[in-house]
Amino acid sequence: MKVVFVAQDPKPERWTAPIQKLLPGAEVHAWNPDGTAIDADYAIVWQPPAELFEREQKLKAIFNLGAGIDGLLTVPNLPPNLTIVRLEDAGMSVQMAEYVLHQLVEASREMEIYREQQRAGTWKIHRPIKRTDWPVGIMGLGQIGKRVARTLADLDYQVFGWARSEHQLDNITTFAGRQNLPDFLKHTRVLVNTLPLTDETRNIIDYDVLAQLQPGAVVINVGRGEHLVDEDLLKALDDGLVARASLDVFRKEPLPSDHPFWTRKDITITPHISARTLREETLEQITGKIRDHANGRPITGIVDTSRGY
Amino acid sequence: MKVVFVAQDPKPERWTAPIQKLLPGAEVHAWNPDGTAIDADYAIVWQPPAELFEREQKLKAIFNLGAGIDGLLTVPNLPPNLTIVRLEDAGMSVQMAEYVLHQLVEASREMEIYREQQRAGTWKIHRPIKRTDWPVGIMGLGQIGKRVARTLADLDYQVFGWARSEHQLDNITTFAGRQNLPDFLKHTRVLVNTLPLTDETRNIIDYDVLAQLQPGAVVINVGRGEHLVDEDLLKALDDGLVARASLDVFRKEPLPSDHPFWTRKDITITPHISARTLREETLEQITGKIRDHANGRPITGIVDTSRGY
Repeated sequence: MKVVFVAQDPKPERWTAPIQKLLPGAEVHAWNPDGTAIDADYAIVWQPPAELFEREQKLKAIFNLGAGIDGLLTVPNLPPNLTIVRLEDAGMSVQMAEYVLHQLVEASREMEIYREQQRAGTWKIHRPIKRTDWPVGIMGLGQIGKRVARTLADLDYQVFGWARSEHQLDNITTFAGRQNLPDFLKHTRVLVNTLPLTDETRNIIDYDVLAQLQPGAVVINVGRGEHLVDEDLLKALDDGLVARASLDVFRKEPLPSDHPFWTRKDITITPHISARTLREETLEQITGKIRDHANGRPITGIVDTSRGY
Repeated sequence: MKVVFVAQDPKPERWTAPIQKLLPGAEVHAWNPDGTAIDADYAIVWQPPAELFEREQKLKAIFNLGAGIDGLLTVPNLPPNLTIVRLEDAGMSVQMAEYVLHQLVEASREMEIYREQQRAGTWKIHRPIKRTDWPVGIMGLGQIGKRVARTLADLDYQVFGWARSEHQLDNITTFAGRQNLPDFLKHTRVLVNTLPLTDETRNIIDYDVLAQLQPGAVVINVGRGEHLVDEDLLKALDDGLVARASLDVFRKEPLPSDHPFWTRKDITITPHISARTLREETLEQITGKIRDHANGRPITGIVDTSRGY
């Protein structure tokens, strides 16, 4: 069995060495931009170049090093019937859940004000929050969205969920489909985006959506930059419809240095770190699936390319 | 039935009005420092003056407006056999759990560095954390400690617990008694204090304890200021034994303006806000217990004054 690893890591051996260890019988290669076909059976990829699919014609499946496969689906030459497998959790959903909770607490409990007070040497206690004043609405109820929802519900937040299709979750009121989006937004003050990026969800968070949130709204985007219409967020902040946004993902990454988000006090920027790929967990999962697939056993996480996730 | 409300709130009617509503048959008074005895059956108190117990001789029980009753036990004239009831949870443990998680994420995921980067317009991704590098040890396994432990364990942190007596908790390794404290500390990088303040626990977090934590230790104190020896923490920070501390409680509150904690970059100060008394939940709990007690029904939360909590 031949496996090719394709990602822009200056030290691909950090990946290929453990892959080799986990698949002792396999021939493991790092992608060589100037090389020739190795007739790989499997590719493990993050944002691969179009040349991969020109050169490697015998691929049985490719494994994406992340949950979101929107970047992969737009690569030219991607064979239409190739089996694409996305990363399932691998330690990412707990990171996302704690990131979202951290940003929610930053907003609801005014942690920046307490930091300012410390810098000024001021002891001043602000009004306690009522959890009922901070209902959270989670867009996207995949593994990540569900985990975020559960963590917040366990901490007694009122949690609402919205997704394309119906979901049943304990202690969480869910809404399905575009026609029920207004109802979901009406219940939501803290909007958390964990949607997959598809043609249906691109630009979904626009001025019209933001205007339907409860007063003092907070937006936490851990999905994709393309879900959010940047200028609409800025307008909603300026118009007082949104109080604050925490953004971890952007239409262009790194976020261009002249982008207006950088200097806003009401926007918190983090550089796509809300959930990181953990090499060990990730490679254990992917190599386990490669073994199963090679042995004809069923695997989970196969992408439905007609849905786009 | 007569109830007296005793707390230094400039607007005691914010409390007495809802108490009256919840106990329609009762005569509800706010404490009048210059008044005379009203022969109250029950007192609802926060840091009451010694005069309360001189003047009101017919008290059947007093209800504390917080979980920690260390401040109450030191009030002179407190009758030795008076039934003292502490607040049980009433929405405080979830607040504490999210505060602790917030401070843990501040430390483990370097959130202040990301805020500095935003101010500088810098996009830079730092190393992801491994949860196994951040084992958490929780001192005190009462309602608050248990809740903090469960929240962190649910987010895949390794959690250890230490208390005076034995406890059994899912997914949490517990240690009991002073003789097992070193073993607990050896497993702990993030030390979270939720202990009650008693003669046994006063000054428990000293240099010797801090020196036994894992490298890069983080201290989160949401118990009482008197648990921590201030100068020992400063020395442990200066000696590199502790990397960071988040302190919500202090030996003297407000923290005096000349206290060295204020200006340290490696200490985060919040003004005793990690868990706030929520009036509605609190008064529902206390008035429910007053009704039960008056009708001879058993109530929970009665303090064992021999243990001090």
